[in-house]
Amino acid sequence: MRGLMQDWPMLCHRIIDHAAMVHGEREVVTRSVEGPIHRTNYAEIRARALKVSQRLDREGIALGDRVATIAWNTWRHLEAWYGIMGIGAICHTVNPRLFPEQIAWIINHAEDRIVMTDLTFIPLLEKLADKLPSVERYIIFTDKAHMPQTALKNAVAYEDWIAEVDGDFTWKTFDENTAAAMCYTSGTTGDPKGVLYSHRSNVLHSMMANNGDALGATSKDTMLPVVPLFHANSWGIAFSAPAMGTKLVMPGAKLDGASVYELLDTENVTYTAGVPTVWLMLLQHMEKQHATLPHLKVVICGGSAMPRSMIKAFDDMGIEVRHAWGMTEMSPIGTVGALQSYYSNLTGEAKLDILQMQGYAPFMVEMKITDDAGRRLPWDGKTYGRLKVRGPAVSGAYYRVKDNILDDEGYFDTGDVATIDQHGYMRITDRSKDVIKSGGEWISSIDLENLAVGHPMVAEAAVIGVHHPKWDERPLLIVQLKQGNTATREDILKYMEGKIAKWWMPDDVVFVDSIPHTATGKILKTALRDQFKTYSLPTAAA
Amino acid sequence: MRGLMQDWPMLCHRIIDHAAMVHGEREVVTRSVEGPIHRTNYAEIRARALKVSQRLDREGIALGDRVATIAWNTWRHLEAWYGIMGIGAICHTVNPRLFPEQIAWIINHAEDRIVMTDLTFIPLLEKLADKLPSVERYIIFTDKAHMPQTALKNAVAYEDWIAEVDGDFTWKTFDENTAAAMCYTSGTTGDPKGVLYSHRSNVLHSMMANNGDALGATSKDTMLPVVPLFHANSWGIAFSAPAMGTKLVMPGAKLDGASVYELLDTENVTYTAGVPTVWLMLLQHMEKQHATLPHLKVVICGGSAMPRSMIKAFDDMGIEVRHAWGMTEMSPIGTVGALQSYYSNLTGEAKLDILQMQGYAPFMVEMKITDDAGRRLPWDGKTYGRLKVRGPAVSGAYYRVKDNILDDEGYFDTGDVATIDQHGYMRITDRSKDVIKSGGEWISSIDLENLAVGHPMVAEAAVIGVHHPKWDERPLLIVQLKQGNTATREDILKYMEGKIAKWWMPDDVVFVDSIPHTATGKILKTALRDQFKTYSLPTAAA
Repeated sequence: MRGLMQDWPMLCHRIIDHAAMVHGEREVVTRSVEGPIHRTNYAEIRARALKVSQRLDREGIALGDRVATIAWNTWRHLEAWYGIMGIGAICHTVNPRLFPEQIAWIINHAEDRIVMTDLTFIPLLEKLADKLPSVERYIIFTDKAHMPQTALKNAVAYEDWIAEVDGDFTWKTFDENTAAAMCYTSGTTGDPKGVLYSHRSNVLHSMMANNGDALGATSKDTMLPVVPLFHANSWGIAFSAPAMGTKLVMPGAKLDGASVYELLDTENVTYTAGVPTVWLMLLQHMEKQHATLPHLKVVICGGSAMPRSMIKAFDDMGIEVRHAWGMTEMSPIGTVGALQSYYSNLTGEAKLDILQMQGYAPFMVEMKITDDAGRRLPWDGKTYGRLKVRGPAVSGAYYRVKDNILDDEGYFDTGDVATIDQHGYMRITDRSKDVIKSGGEWISSIDLENLAVGHPMVAEAAVIGVHHPKWDERPLLIVQLKQGNTATREDILKYMEGKIAKWWMPDDVVFVDSIPHTATGKILKTALRDQFKTYSLPTAAA
Repeated sequence: MRGLMQDWPMLCHRIIDHAAMVHGEREVVTRSVEGPIHRTNYAEIRARALKVSQRLDREGIALGDRVATIAWNTWRHLEAWYGIMGIGAICHTVNPRLFPEQIAWIINHAEDRIVMTDLTFIPLLEKLADKLPSVERYIIFTDKAHMPQTALKNAVAYEDWIAEVDGDFTWKTFDENTAAAMCYTSGTTGDPKGVLYSHRSNVLHSMMANNGDALGATSKDTMLPVVPLFHANSWGIAFSAPAMGTKLVMPGAKLDGASVYELLDTENVTYTAGVPTVWLMLLQHMEKQHATLPHLKVVICGGSAMPRSMIKAFDDMGIEVRHAWGMTEMSPIGTVGALQSYYSNLTGEAKLDILQMQGYAPFMVEMKITDDAGRRLPWDGKTYGRLKVRGPAVSGAYYRVKDNILDDEGYFDTGDVATIDQHGYMRITDRSKDVIKSGGEWISSIDLENLAVGHPMVAEAAVIGVHHPKWDERPLLIVQLKQGNTATREDILKYMEGKIAKWWMPDDVVFVDSIPHTATGKILKTALRDQFKTYSLPTAAA
């Protein structure tokens, strides 16, 4: 028997409708790419998003068409976002920090018909335009006064473009499983893979994010997402903030410590979200200026692990740090590290131990850890396993890729290796392709790297598994020393001794001039594995 | 184009799965019907709910079958709740406070196959049993030691009944639109009407309830739902608390001031929810005992309007009052009165003015006010209109009733008359059937009643519209004086003068010995309208 409640499809534009009706005067403040601070509100954002929809409709963009954005966090980007989705087109956020050839590959794979972009990225796109046959026109997020000369096809200033319509338009309606947005992940190997969010998944993710233990901002809060809209929907904040009526502060192109600090301070921001690099710059700026942020309540930190010293720095200022973990394939929230009641009375190092974990899954994310054979492993905080996830905002497939990416229980393998404790707190210990499998046991390359960089002479460290006749694989530590410093193999190993299990100790240490990185700043272990493919460990001969 | 996220149906038992996995040790504390305080946790609740599912399955209960509960808020009721829904059967919560003949009518209309009940209600059911042909067996929420002799068909103690299975069982899976629960509304006229919740609507409602501006409890909070599970799922708390890992305190059969106070105090409750009568009893108890509740942060008050003095009493103690409005047909949350940023700096009377309104709709409830012709009216805080609502947890139809209950935009008419201000704050001014239509303008019967009861001699007041040759209808004030007191028509009218618009003044006052009520304590205006059908107003002759 079916229930008799209303059929009310979860569509993204219902979020901005709600914001405009109930929180219409709540501000959206942006450091514009042109320079000045710009102020608008949710009612105006909705009105202009409707113009975007109407103008796209006139342009011939329809249900299922892809429209790319390569842009900073601004009010115009937010309007375009809802405007694109509001007619059932797909908002494809492209990360401008990728290598140009990756950007071209992604736009071609998505077959984007329109590219909306900031002044910042015109030179980049002018170089690529010849290789982008599907793109019919470029819309530049600016006005006539700031519009430059450009060879980009049918280029037009956004303000001129939307001025051609009157906004008397109604959102289209369609099934809630319709694709709403698209974001490519670029790993260290293979082609980028397209994640295709649905209206349903975006709406559910925003509701999940708005519980008090996840992002948890309210209508009285002000949120500054430093994390860009092109990073998995800025962790969903472009949906969750308007759904709650949270005031939004958008940092535009300036993500340095001084600029972020200024906005946090002048706009009385209470919640902010971003990656560790951003917080490092902010903390350095604040230390230099002896600055404080009395209004700031919560810092959400994801993207990569937050150093303990950084957690402590915020905690010492009375600012709650919530370590978050997720991935593009998860919309992206997987876990958030708010303190559960069991841990809420902890102080000092014990508290930092918990805050340094990646947190626990909110309702609608299901997690398990398994061994290589897929058998579930216990949640004891010690046992490592492959981290697998399930939920309505988790990928079930990639765009135009036939491979089945789910196991027989419907879980997606995150590619991470993790422990989970009895309260569901998860700790990433490694990437599954980087973990070193020594005699059937797993050694975390990340733990060894984190330990090695603690040595005062070490600038950066990478650990890879190298073939070993007896143990299958053993860890090789690759070290880049700080400029002008020296250290021996023995110095490094001695430093590590006693701090980890004996069988975890690297079998050898090699020194290199530089460690290779991906476009997004991660260690390129595939290159290191190639380089040391035939490396013979001293222990292998024994 | 469809999005490529996972197919993850929203099923109620996924909530208790989540609670057991991530918040398994969080307590559920009950004042048992037998007397003592009982302590369990979410992991145990889930394990025993699975036994209920398994045992019902063995009983032959299957997808779509109705299982009634007539019971207080206890851990066993919660287990039964998830156990019934977990096999796709429908948990039909019956309100024991209805007239016995209404209870029989409802059980027969629902064709309940099993009734689960507390010791309290055995005498009531023994009287009705002959009239309940669909009921195959009665399960009493108790153990062998407390099980009385009873003539109820196949009666068995719950603990004995679930002890017959081992709990090695898996929830059934089905479409998320499958009916999960059922609750009848009983108006003042006509037969009760069955609201049929789906798994989808229950899950979405729980996520909506868990935003910080709605119920907003977190995993660190403790929630005491005084509002019973048979009142629209205890406002969804039976779902929202486990979804967040909020500790639950269940009051069982004792809802008096001293008993509720004791649980709030000893269990360090931070959130509680109930109707004004309960809070009145609590406040009276606290005043008498000079008692405080330092842990209590939020009181959610719904069911009927909260008197201003009560709001002030909690506010003076530093306890946040959230006025909520909803109805069984809304799962039930419609609006919650948390303060938006615009209002958050108000103090004194201005703050009470806002808190006394019913609050604003969270995302997923859409509201409009219209005139009788269905035209939308402005949100200016002054204009009255019929309040209509739309959303995924709002009724689209009643059980086994063919009538279309939605307008052409898909909105459900709440039967209330309300104003909405520019920030979405709604204020109920009347029931649409009670509003007095005087020369095309509306006069709120409730506002007049609230004013009249302010007179020191008045015990209760009711206002109805009476036919008038010129104005169509004019208000008649019906007064029941406090015992031993006297007052004249002129005394009362003089007291009201100047406090309302002149044309709102009642055309006459009549005194009665007692004002009739419904089973749930509301003024029975249909009876009054019958009684005064031919009443001739003094102004009518003029």
